[in-house]
Amino acid sequence: MARHHVHVAPDSGRVDSLQQAALAGGAELVDASSAEVLIWADPARAGELADYLETMDKVTWVALPYAGIEPYLPTIRSRRDLLWTCARDVYSRPVAEHAVALATSGLRNIVGYARQDRWTAPAGTMLTDGRITIFGGGGISRALISLLQGWNCDITVVRRSAEPLAGAARVMPPSKAVEAVRGADAVVLALPLTEHTRHIIDKTVLRAMEPHAWIVNVARGGVIDTDDLVEALVEGSIGGAALDVTDPEPLPDGHQLWDLSNVVITPHVGNTPEMGIPLLAAFIEENVRSWIDDNEVEGVVDPESGY
Amino acid sequence: MARHHVHVAPDSGRVDSLQQAALAGGAELVDASSAEVLIWADPARAGELADYLETMDKVTWVALPYAGIEPYLPTIRSRRDLLWTCARDVYSRPVAEHAVALATSGLRNIVGYARQDRWTAPAGTMLTDGRITIFGGGGISRALISLLQGWNCDITVVRRSAEPLAGAARVMPPSKAVEAVRGADAVVLALPLTEHTRHIIDKTVLRAMEPHAWIVNVARGGVIDTDDLVEALVEGSIGGAALDVTDPEPLPDGHQLWDLSNVVITPHVGNTPEMGIPLLAAFIEENVRSWIDDNEVEGVVDPESGY
Repeated sequence: MARHHVHVAPDSGRVDSLQQAALAGGAELVDASSAEVLIWADPARAGELADYLETMDKVTWVALPYAGIEPYLPTIRSRRDLLWTCARDVYSRPVAEHAVALATSGLRNIVGYARQDRWTAPAGTMLTDGRITIFGGGGISRALISLLQGWNCDITVVRRSAEPLAGAARVMPPSKAVEAVRGADAVVLALPLTEHTRHIIDKTVLRAMEPHAWIVNVARGGVIDTDDLVEALVEGSIGGAALDVTDPEPLPDGHQLWDLSNVVITPHVGNTPEMGIPLLAAFIEENVRSWIDDNEVEGVVDPESGY
Repeated sequence: MARHHVHVAPDSGRVDSLQQAALAGGAELVDASSAEVLIWADPARAGELADYLETMDKVTWVALPYAGIEPYLPTIRSRRDLLWTCARDVYSRPVAEHAVALATSGLRNIVGYARQDRWTAPAGTMLTDGRITIFGGGGISRALISLLQGWNCDITVVRRSAEPLAGAARVMPPSKAVEAVRGADAVVLALPLTEHTRHIIDKTVLRAMEPHAWIVNVARGGVIDTDDLVEALVEGSIGGAALDVTDPEPLPDGHQLWDLSNVVITPHVGNTPEMGIPLLAAFIEENVRSWIDDNEVEGVVDPESGY
C-alpha cells in the first residue's frame, strides 16, 4: 500500500497547480503505472479517461476536477471497482454569485440598458423582498441561499429530498415544479443533469411562471427544453432568461437565443479557470491529505444517481 | 393648531397614493391655504415650491418626496422658519440592490456578454470574498452592507464621521479617498451631493483604483468628475463604470460614455416609481402619524449640511 503515490494527468493548464496541491497534501508524485491515485486534470477530456486507466494497475481512487460529471458516467459505471470523487461544492460560491448577478441584471433590466445608446424609460423589478425558486438542494443552492441572507427573499427549493433546507421557506418535490415556480420573481436552476432532470423545465413549467419572472440557468443546458424556452421568450410569457449554460453548448452562431432582447447568455463562466483553479487546488490538497491519513474523502460519486 | 390639516401638491402621479397615505396616518386633507402640512408630490418640480409656499399661510412642515434634495436647497434655506423633511433612507433597499446588481454585472462581465451575439472567452472577477469600498455612511450604505452580509467581502466605508459602521471592516475620512479605493474590486458611490462631495471622484482617486475594478454610482452624477472618468475608461486604467446617475443627466445622445464597452448606464432607476411609491407612501403614513401625535418625525433636513 502506498496511498501517497499520486499521479496527475492529462497534460493541461491545471497540472501544475494540482501537482502543487497534491504535494502540499502530503503526496509523492509518481508515474501512472505505480500510482494509487489519479487526479484528472482536464475536465474537457472525459473520453480519454477509460483508456488512461488501463495503464494504471494500482489505481484505487480517481479524483475528477468538475462538479458536473455526466460525460464521465459511462467510465465511472464501467469501473465500479474504483473510488470516484468529483469537485462537488467546490465551485459553489462563484457559481451562486453568478446566479445572483444574472437574476438581478435581468430583473433590474441592466441587460436591456446595456444594449441602449440613449436614456430610456424606467423599468425593473426588485429581487430584495421578492420570491425566488431554486431547483436543486446541493452546494450551489446552499451557497445561493447564503448570499441572499440579507435580501429578505421568500425562498422555495425544489429537490427530491423533503428535508428542510436552512434559509428556505419551503422544500418541494420535482413533481410540484409547476406549483413551485408560481409567483416567483426568479427561478434559478442549480441541479445536476441526470435522466430525471433532463428537460425538467418545459413548456408546462414555463407557462406557470410570472410574466415578469426571469429564469436563470447555472446548471447544465439540458435541464431546460430549449425549444420550449425559445417559445416562451418569443411570446413574452416570462420576463427573460439568463443562461450561463445552453443546449447545445457552446450555443452556435445564429441561434435564435442570441437575437432575443429578453435573453442574456454568458459562456459557462459561473466559475472561470481564474476563479476555479485556486478553489480546486485547495479542495484537492485537503482531499489528498484525508486520503493519505485514511480519513473520509469529500465529493464521493454515486455511480447510480450520477452525481 | 390643526396638526392634522394636510395638503398634497402639486398634481402628479404620486398624489393619490400620498393622499391615501396621509389619510391612513390620521390626516384630514384640506386646501393649501388652511394646511399646516404640505406633502410635495413631484420630485421634479422643485422650482415651483417657493411660490407655492407663498399661498400657504399656516404651513409649518414640508415633506419632500426624494432622498437627494439639492434642487430644493435654495428654497429650504430661504424658509428656515419651516420644518423640512426628505424621504431619507426610504429608497435605500432598492438602490442598494441596484448597486449590487451593477457591480456584479460589471465585474462578472454580464454587461460585456449582453452585447455579444456569439460564444466568447471566459472573463470575470468575483465580488464574493472580495473587497468593496463604499463612499457614504447613510441609508444606502447600510442597506448595501446588509445585502452583502453573506458575501464575505472586506468592506471599507468612506465618510466624514469616524464612528465605526456595523459590517464595515474600517471607516476612513474623505481625505483618505485615494488610500480607501486601493485594492478594491468595486467602488460604490452612495453619498449625498454637496459642496464637499462634488467631484470627490477625480483623476487622483481613479488612478488609485485597480485596473480590474468597477466604479458604481448610485448617488448623484456630480460626485464624479465625468471628464476624468471618461479618461480613465478610455485608458483602461479601471475595469469599468456602472452609472445609474450621470453628469449631465439625462446623459445626452451621442455622449462618449454611451460608446465605451466598459460602461453600462441605467437611467436613474435605483428605485423606479413602481418600487418607490409604495415605500414612500408607507414612510409618509408613519411620519404623518408621528406628526399628529406630536412625536419626532423622520428625515429632518439640516439646511446647512444640505441633507
